Amino acid sequence: MTRVLFAAADARWAQYEAPLRAALQEAGIAPRLDCDTSQPEEVDYIVFAPNGPVEDFSPFTGLKAVLNLWAGVEGIVGNPTLKVPLTRMVDTGLTEGMVEWCVGQTLRHHLGMDAQIKHQDGVWRHLEFIPPLARTRKVCVLGLGALGSAVAEALLALNFRVSGFSRRPKDVSGVTCYSGPDILKALDGADIVIALLPYTRATDSILDAEAFAAMASGAVVLNPGRGGLIDDSALLAALDSGLISHATLDVFRTEPLPEDDPYWAHPKVTVTPHIASETRPDTASRVIAENIRRGMAGEPLLHLVDMDSGY
Amino acid sequence: MTRVLFAAADARWAQYEAPLRAALQEAGIAPRLDCDTSQPEEVDYIVFAPNGPVEDFSPFTGLKAVLNLWAGVEGIVGNPTLKVPLTRMVDTGLTEGMVEWCVGQTLRHHLGMDAQIKHQDGVWRHLEFIPPLARTRKVCVLGLGALGSAVAEALLALNFRVSGFSRRPKDVSGVTCYSGPDILKALDGADIVIALLPYTRATDSILDAEAFAAMASGAVVLNPGRGGLIDDSALLAALDSGLISHATLDVFRTEPLPEDDPYWAHPKVTVTPHIASETRPDTASRVIAENIRRGMAGEPLLHLVDMDSGY
Repeated sequence: MTRVLFAAADARWAQYEAPLRAALQEAGIAPRLDCDTSQPEEVDYIVFAPNGPVEDFSPFTGLKAVLNLWAGVEGIVGNPTLKVPLTRMVDTGLTEGMVEWCVGQTLRHHLGMDAQIKHQDGVWRHLEFIPPLARTRKVCVLGLGALGSAVAEALLALNFRVSGFSRRPKDVSGVTCYSGPDILKALDGADIVIALLPYTRATDSILDAEAFAAMASGAVVLNPGRGGLIDDSALLAALDSGLISHATLDVFRTEPLPEDDPYWAHPKVTVTPHIASETRPDTASRVIAENIRRGMAGEPLLHLVDMDSGY
Repeated sequence: MTRVLFAAADARWAQYEAPLRAALQEAGIAPRLDCDTSQPEEVDYIVFAPNGPVEDFSPFTGLKAVLNLWAGVEGIVGNPTLKVPLTRMVDTGLTEGMVEWCVGQTLRHHLGMDAQIKHQDGVWRHLEFIPPLARTRKVCVLGLGALGSAVAEALLALNFRVSGFSRRPKDVSGVTCYSGPDILKALDGADIVIALLPYTRATDSILDAEAFAAMASGAVVLNPGRGGLIDDSALLAALDSGLISHATLDVFRTEPLPEDDPYWAHPKVTVTPHIASETRPDTASRVIAENIRRGMAGEPLLHLVDMDSGY
């Protein structure tokens, strides 16, 4: 009998058990599913998230694949004991939530909402508060995978001028796409920048002083991707100099963000507590179940991670 | 020679003269265009906005049409001296700006941004701040004209569940449409309500206690339409009782909103200074020029107002 081990933090099992069982049934398969790590050699598939019971994959001698519960795989991809295929999560619910957070935050800054919310003082600032149209705003989306391209398309539908950057050349209709070494070309003159790159050696601190200087003066930075994409000292300096007018950050090198981190108190920074990229149990469970079904049927798995590039 | 009188507040002439002249030239016509009211009998077309020099149309004996500069015509439609066709503005720039304001404010409330912006206190509220997906939120758009249907379509594209209401039956793909007496059906259970109806006798105070009671408990009201659509006392009572959790209001019965109006100081109200529905000179001038061209060529005018229904 096929065995699936759910290996994530305890709280996740309560969230995922019912939807996972429902999704497996929906997929027409009936593997054994539990959190029992006592007979590792019998496990065929591991549903994995960091902070769970498994760090060493060596005892899982019959393992066929590891199915990561999150979109980001930096917590597992470098694990030297992992010798089987690894898939990452491409969850329609996660994509939807990410699009909503990114479009909402882009419109918040585009429309100048913070000043309007703040100035409820009886002064009628009509001309001062009329925003320009989105068609005059340049938004740059860094990362054009499932999330970045969905965000870029939603922004295009609202008439924003969208440029994009990805390591490998991508083509998203309507988006001016750059790749390889051309990140500064993508950032050139951008009013709002959205960081959605995977976190790898190549993207560590990719948003540095040079990147901030390439953006439009007073640009806004949104980071719903990964904390390590940003050179934090360079961002704080750019905020203090006015080069960057605001940063809304959802992810950080250390999470939860420590209470004494300078981002919390900075008047030009909004911290949101890693809420942009939440995997949704219902939709994510279907992706996991489909990959187990494929594995059991000998079909190729979806969303395989390329171990060399790290995502 | 065809004469066009620009009759709006003085400040508008500075904004509109250049784009209007450019648009007339682009339309291939060369009427005389100025603000000179000294020979009313020679005027063929009036570009009109309230607070300008013309209140009595009787002296304009050769007048062929009045071209309203704004989308709302309640400032002119009841004028008994107006005997010629009246057109209202359907400006792509105005529509774009309206869509951006409505989608931005909807996402602001959907995502719970205010609480996140306010609580920059070092506490990591991950589970508390994860918003539901848009596909679980019901948004009701009141008014399905050029503006309302564009807003409804933009919200649909972001997966919101959208219901709509209009006086006459309308069909907007993907929107559950109600009309005639069925406004309470459209509002039933709505989490966010957007008021974009024209202001007429029939819509005065259409958002009253009964309407607020039909919405979901804790609903949010957005009014970028006309101030008179809302029964202000009923809204204040619904906010105080918690039936409505927030109102973001862009338009008011008196504008500018007086400094001592209770809306300014109310903790559950955001006042924005009539910025959602700004007509944009470049695009609006093209609409005006096209209608003058049509008038001169004997073709039917665009966007004619039905004097009986008042819009």
